[in-house]
Amino acid sequence: MRMVDLINKKKQGRELTPAEINFIIGRYTVGEIPDYQMSALLMAIYFKGMGKEEITNLTLAYINSGDQVDLSGIKGIKVDKHSTGGVGDKVSLIVIPLVASLGVPVAKMSGRGLGHTGGTIDKLEAIAGFKTSLTMEEFLQHVNSYKMALVGQTANLTPADKKIYALRDVTATVDSVPLIAASVMSKKLASGADAIVLDVKVGSGAFMKSLDEAKELAQTMVDIGNSLKRKTVALLTDMSQPLGHEVGNANEVREAIEVLQGRGAKDLTTVALTIAAYMAVLGGACPNFEKAYKELEKLINSGSAIDKFKQFIEIQGGQSEIVDHPDRLPQAKYHVAVQAAQAGYVTAIDAEAIGLAAMLLGAGRKKKDDLIDFAAGLTIVKKVGDRVDAGDTICLLHTNLAEHREAKNIAASAYSFGGDQPNSTGQYVYEVIQ
Amino acid sequence: MRMVDLINKKKQGRELTPAEINFIIGRYTVGEIPDYQMSALLMAIYFKGMGKEEITNLTLAYINSGDQVDLSGIKGIKVDKHSTGGVGDKVSLIVIPLVASLGVPVAKMSGRGLGHTGGTIDKLEAIAGFKTSLTMEEFLQHVNSYKMALVGQTANLTPADKKIYALRDVTATVDSVPLIAASVMSKKLASGADAIVLDVKVGSGAFMKSLDEAKELAQTMVDIGNSLKRKTVALLTDMSQPLGHEVGNANEVREAIEVLQGRGAKDLTTVALTIAAYMAVLGGACPNFEKAYKELEKLINSGSAIDKFKQFIEIQGGQSEIVDHPDRLPQAKYHVAVQAAQAGYVTAIDAEAIGLAAMLLGAGRKKKDDLIDFAAGLTIVKKVGDRVDAGDTICLLHTNLAEHREAKNIAASAYSFGGDQPNSTGQYVYEVIQ
Repeated sequence: MRMVDLINKKKQGRELTPAEINFIIGRYTVGEIPDYQMSALLMAIYFKGMGKEEITNLTLAYINSGDQVDLSGIKGIKVDKHSTGGVGDKVSLIVIPLVASLGVPVAKMSGRGLGHTGGTIDKLEAIAGFKTSLTMEEFLQHVNSYKMALVGQTANLTPADKKIYALRDVTATVDSVPLIAASVMSKKLASGADAIVLDVKVGSGAFMKSLDEAKELAQTMVDIGNSLKRKTVALLTDMSQPLGHEVGNANEVREAIEVLQGRGAKDLTTVALTIAAYMAVLGGACPNFEKAYKELEKLINSGSAIDKFKQFIEIQGGQSEIVDHPDRLPQAKYHVAVQAAQAGYVTAIDAEAIGLAAMLLGAGRKKKDDLIDFAAGLTIVKKVGDRVDAGDTICLLHTNLAEHREAKNIAASAYSFGGDQPNSTGQYVYEVIQ
Repeated sequence: MRMVDLINKKKQGRELTPAEINFIIGRYTVGEIPDYQMSALLMAIYFKGMGKEEITNLTLAYINSGDQVDLSGIKGIKVDKHSTGGVGDKVSLIVIPLVASLGVPVAKMSGRGLGHTGGTIDKLEAIAGFKTSLTMEEFLQHVNSYKMALVGQTANLTPADKKIYALRDVTATVDSVPLIAASVMSKKLASGADAIVLDVKVGSGAFMKSLDEAKELAQTMVDIGNSLKRKTVALLTDMSQPLGHEVGNANEVREAIEVLQGRGAKDLTTVALTIAAYMAVLGGACPNFEKAYKELEKLINSGSAIDKFKQFIEIQGGQSEIVDHPDRLPQAKYHVAVQAAQAGYVTAIDAEAIGLAAMLLGAGRKKKDDLIDFAAGLTIVKKVGDRVDAGDTICLLHTNLAEHREAKNIAASAYSFGGDQPNSTGQYVYEVIQ
């Protein structure tokens, strides 16, 4: 078997066999196939796509390239969730205690953020003492005792995908549905999930800008899950503007608390509860979505949800007093109002630009080793559909940096205004694919 | 400027600007852009193509990446020819003395062969003493004195193309018309040609299997030449079977001599004279193709052509006695007849397979540093349209290798037979593009 022939085969739009895919991924991972051949293949895949079986085989090859987490020591159906990445996406913080409250084990492995989207671990580390470097033994023990635990990805999971992802990033081959789908699903499956709820974001702040693209990606991931016997549900959710009102780290924790206390923003609450409800169904705690959703609302109204969140913080070593005293979360030195230059209705908020502004304020990383300022971020005061007068505060910057002009300009220009109130569908979850 | 953005731009089918092309080629040549980004771009070019201006700019960037040969010391219009590579293609050996006889300077730089097609230099080196390592001074002097000289490519011509060609070879991106066209034309232009006749081969033994593909390549190369103010003519010629009867090195020299003596095979004679005639027209020696062709026939009939070939051999240090005594060319130890397994008409001869058989017999190189056995090769006894009986010799192998079964099998299976005489168009030159 020669790599050049396999590149040629894919270039002609033919399907690669399992043996060919294993050859490519195995040899590439150990460095026997050079980057320049892999990048040519990736570009051919971008143009020619992959068949269903091919994508499943690629996913399996990614999984087999590294370790797999053994969660068999945990009782029950382990349900994981994954978001394709959005701005202001603090959904994981909300669903972990909610789903665990229903008795479904949530063994969550999370990553750190890079670029305009933040990572769940970064957000939780805004809580003093919160640690995510559990041993595997502690991790399993916590899940069995409390139905929830969170750990940073430490194992050598899907190294083939890691190496290929780095290559895609510099060869303009990131936006390929089969490659994205195999990457996401291999990581979830190698992490030991029995069932998976996928939150596929759609809109200006998401990787997938159109509903059609997002649908194709969602369907592809669901197909992979099903073909590998893991129940998989994908939700297409709105990311045409940031989710909720807070973008950053400490402020996103505060907003998650508000949702768990029943006073959260409607878009964020809806998306989080929808995801949690599907997790509860897949985990066998509820017979159907509608019942699950109602159960979750009850948990919030009764105070059980926020109590479970406190417990979550405590078992991870964090100071749970921040739940009752959110002002004890890290606070920024400067709070800068961005004002509307004109009167009218907010017609759009470029979520990617808001994410970029947050990063510039210190809330995110430009490079992998950058430090995060937990106190930094933005509050989206006015959202799409809101009426403003010239001079009204549309968003607030929180930062410890004296120099924040660029971030302010970017945040200001993220907003679009118009004379008419935009037709809002009020839809936060567009579609469910299962 | 970032390479990843330029890859993305091309991936989306947009045209690269001259500055972008210069950035890519310049940085890649010095190693500042890595192979893995270049190969992704090459694959994107394979799928999305390039516009006319883009191709011209790529050609210029290739030329500017290295030295350019200064032929301004040669009087007259320097006309070069290039063949896209065929089996049994000894046309250069024939046209050099013919065109020079008409007073048009032929300053020829040639390469060595690799794989199933031989190189002009390899063929001429079958003549004892023939040397192709002239200094630039000798080279120019010969052309001014005798209107002809041949030298191996020694200068640092188009290093960017060389580096990119090596990468294309291992990334399945060879068969891209813009990349082939820029590669061929940059080399010819860097070699200092004022005008160029391109012999684009079509058929089983050629890189371009169909007339449409060949036409696209021919037109693209003619467009480059014209946009850079060099008169360029492309001929589409038949390579559905080997050209002439001889495939190898010494035996190809012998066949070239036969053509120059007026007793050559019709296909080879027609192709060689057509190319020479267009060279004569571009070089200003004749007013039109028809007159040029007649002049060339006269040169052959009068014996001037073969005398000029003798002179060519002599000025390059070779023993011209082989012209009158072709038996003094290297002779192989074994001559093995391949016989027809059935009666019928020869309907096809896979030229690429014949080229491969010749290589296995010792006539070509598998690897760049392999030595060539000048005596080795094949004689195509029966050509397409010929009637054979079972047991008739269809071709002869010439080799010094005692073990030649594989070559014999390949040569035998290169022939196809049928009950009816195939409809031959008798056309050796399909089209002229100028």
